[in-house]
Amino acid sequence: MTLDNHYSGSALLTDLYQLTMAYGYWKSGKGEEQAVFNLYFRKHPFQGGFTISCGLESVVHYLENYSFSESDIAYLASLTGADGQPLFESGFLEYLRELKFSCDLDAIPEGTLVFPDEPLIRVTGPVIQCQLLETALLNIVNFESLIATKAARIRLVAPEDTLLEFGLRRAQGPDGGITASRAAYIGGFDGTSNVFAGRKFNIPVKGTHAHSWVMSFPSEKEAFEAYAAHMPNNVILLVDTYDTLKGVKNAIEVGRELKKNNHRLLGVRLDSGDLAYLSIESRKLLDDNGFTDTSIVASNDLDEYIIKSLKEQGARIDAWGVGTRLVTAYDQPALGGVYKLSALKKSDGTWDYKLKLSEQMVKVSTPGVLQVRRFSKNGVFVADMIFNQEDEWEGETRMIHPYDFTKQQSFGPGYSFEDLLVPIFRNGGLVAELPGITDIKERAARQLKSIYEGTLRFTNPHTYHVGLEKHLFDLKTRLIMEKRAGK
Amino acid sequence: MTLDNHYSGSALLTDLYQLTMAYGYWKSGKGEEQAVFNLYFRKHPFQGGFTISCGLESVVHYLENYSFSESDIAYLASLTGADGQPLFESGFLEYLRELKFSCDLDAIPEGTLVFPDEPLIRVTGPVIQCQLLETALLNIVNFESLIATKAARIRLVAPEDTLLEFGLRRAQGPDGGITASRAAYIGGFDGTSNVFAGRKFNIPVKGTHAHSWVMSFPSEKEAFEAYAAHMPNNVILLVDTYDTLKGVKNAIEVGRELKKNNHRLLGVRLDSGDLAYLSIESRKLLDDNGFTDTSIVASNDLDEYIIKSLKEQGARIDAWGVGTRLVTAYDQPALGGVYKLSALKKSDGTWDYKLKLSEQMVKVSTPGVLQVRRFSKNGVFVADMIFNQEDEWEGETRMIHPYDFTKQQSFGPGYSFEDLLVPIFRNGGLVAELPGITDIKERAARQLKSIYEGTLRFTNPHTYHVGLEKHLFDLKTRLIMEKRAGK
Repeated sequence: MTLDNHYSGSALLTDLYQLTMAYGYWKSGKGEEQAVFNLYFRKHPFQGGFTISCGLESVVHYLENYSFSESDIAYLASLTGADGQPLFESGFLEYLRELKFSCDLDAIPEGTLVFPDEPLIRVTGPVIQCQLLETALLNIVNFESLIATKAARIRLVAPEDTLLEFGLRRAQGPDGGITASRAAYIGGFDGTSNVFAGRKFNIPVKGTHAHSWVMSFPSEKEAFEAYAAHMPNNVILLVDTYDTLKGVKNAIEVGRELKKNNHRLLGVRLDSGDLAYLSIESRKLLDDNGFTDTSIVASNDLDEYIIKSLKEQGARIDAWGVGTRLVTAYDQPALGGVYKLSALKKSDGTWDYKLKLSEQMVKVSTPGVLQVRRFSKNGVFVADMIFNQEDEWEGETRMIHPYDFTKQQSFGPGYSFEDLLVPIFRNGGLVAELPGITDIKERAARQLKSIYEGTLRFTNPHTYHVGLEKHLFDLKTRLIMEKRAGK
Repeated sequence: MTLDNHYSGSALLTDLYQLTMAYGYWKSGKGEEQAVFNLYFRKHPFQGGFTISCGLESVVHYLENYSFSESDIAYLASLTGADGQPLFESGFLEYLRELKFSCDLDAIPEGTLVFPDEPLIRVTGPVIQCQLLETALLNIVNFESLIATKAARIRLVAPEDTLLEFGLRRAQGPDGGITASRAAYIGGFDGTSNVFAGRKFNIPVKGTHAHSWVMSFPSEKEAFEAYAAHMPNNVILLVDTYDTLKGVKNAIEVGRELKKNNHRLLGVRLDSGDLAYLSIESRKLLDDNGFTDTSIVASNDLDEYIIKSLKEQGARIDAWGVGTRLVTAYDQPALGGVYKLSALKKSDGTWDYKLKLSEQMVKVSTPGVLQVRRFSKNGVFVADMIFNQEDEWEGETRMIHPYDFTKQQSFGPGYSFEDLLVPIFRNGGLVAELPGITDIKERAARQLKSIYEGTLRFTNPHTYHVGLEKHLFDLKTRLIMEKRAGK
């Protein structure tokens, strides 16, 4: 047994209400009605100005294997309601047993900068299927995008350094760790300590030794010597088991022996104490003894704020091991993605556009068969416009702020554009070629270089413009007015 | 394919440094030396006064299947060091291929109240194996204990209400959600929306419908009628798609029809807005129309603080759906468990006790073959004493505060006691019978009733006494002094 299939296709990876609704659709005879659902979020994580999309590959693996097994069906047959009678009748369970994923799915590729209200995934197909998929799709995309974004923020404060993800022991379960390793790599990290993730996703793995190695020898010096003797091509010594600067001195002595044998003291690692002070003092000791090319690695509850602060204090750290606060997205451990119905096909083949009302404007959903158009000028992203694919218009494109119609913007021939959602599945068949992890990682890095840098800062970031195309804005306004009037 | 084996035994679920250290032990010829490692945490989560242990069952499943597969070995053989040469020589990989878990493992049963510095798990066996297991054990126990504790805190503010876990869509990956469902149930929840977890762990599953169900019909009224017609034994209606109190009125009309057919409007659900006001008004509407036994269910970013506040405001809510903030432990998404070497067996068969020094006293590890003795008086827990199983003493037991030796406590015949760590594996074979989930859940509830309630409060909780038995305290002090003297 391995964990390789942790994103397998179990259709039970859902909330019960998706199944009771599916049952209701089936009973109502509307289960095969074509619906459009959009997955989007309303607010960037970490009070930031951007999010990196991630998780599509996991979604594809999930959908490729999507099915109800015999034991799933038996379990559902055992569920009962308030009167002790079965929740589901056998005809419906038979329907589930035969169910195959047959939807169209369009998505924004992994590693793309994305913004509030933009559909990251659009599912079009029988309303039962669209509904059943909600929970798994949200679970996957929310978490992976969250971690890729966190990693990108850390990369922003340490553009030239080595960034290593060390989080498995504090992650939220095994696949919390494994998935975080992948998302962190995409977001800008260089490697992971997680061996399983390294193999599964082809990510460089890093690691040397812990305090227990040192403690298992009579002295730190002997522990260092033994390590260097046994693995001379991977010597980064953890120097803080007893006394950090004494540890550096011991490492230097071992480094001298390594040199004699044409090996190298690659680094020392600091895992506690005042990392600014200790790294500066360690650098001096190393340089004074001719170890100018020996790196200093630091770990211990790091995140983008602490790394930034350490750099401002003049810390001499070349490589950062980041664990807990990266893989759990410690300061905001969930992205609040949602998945909303936006259209249902009428019997005459036209769309009935759908909207969820709310007292809060930001919680009112957007109707339509949605697509996102990204406008650029001179290679820099200028604005994203959400539009209804069914609408056509001539001449200049007008975009309206979703919550303030006095803010409008027009795009003429001076702009280039790209539509972000691309076809992934058609009638349940995979039609996209999935990029390799390195391509996704490079895409993320390029995207971050293609946007005004104020968008990337941590405090009061610049708000990148996202709006609704004018026809869509008018449709949404009309539906809101109708709903408020109780129609 | 299913997710059933998400805690399978892949030995690659570890940090690379565990493998490089294992290699070093093997090269040094000390791989089979007997070691003792303890898994413990230093601080309760959520600034609280207690933690509920959870995760042992997952640990057992992991260890029962623990092995390196052929593909694991092939992957490890492909790893290289700074000089491009392999990290591991083939003899070591052969050793890993044959490796079988053969340690002793003692643990505190799931559902037990546990406190800082207490070993929750003690592993005794060949140092290589003890080392390799660190990451997976921490990953499992940290997360599950964190969520069980969060759930218990929510149960404390709503002792009589129905508590439902709704978090899968916002959890950190699929098994983040599945595992959280189990831990939440153990910590005091009544059910989950997560169907996969429901089947896997035999947890009651709950759910009815979402906004999309209402939106897919021409009107809310028609949506409610259709739902009640199709699933009359499971009618809890979500009333806030357009206008909450109008929604309650529509639900009442549907409830009248249900009554005529000997069914019942079980509840209405509020998912947005001012839950205090809306629940009070909904209760009035329901009562005035004879629906006194119809429950009010609330959801929307709830946690123990918000539920407490809503109750203080007189909210009339009978059942709470808690998602994001429970399954991610939003305000502290990681428990900081650690795993430290505490003893190595010398060639003469006696123990060489080990200690990791730190500038911060709380980070100095405890040496010994550790066990935890819980003293009670009249059925109430009084204090936990960590002791070295190898020590024997006569007469009264003396316990000393781990960081302030002026605080001492003695236990004579007036106290009853229980040793918390029980044998789980002996020489790699499972010797414990694992309790069912209901037994674990009941144990947690009983434990919470067996402790001074000030320990359970959220703000400045009473600190439950945990100390070191005098001989252990003396040993630790001696080793600290020796290490500080550079011995």
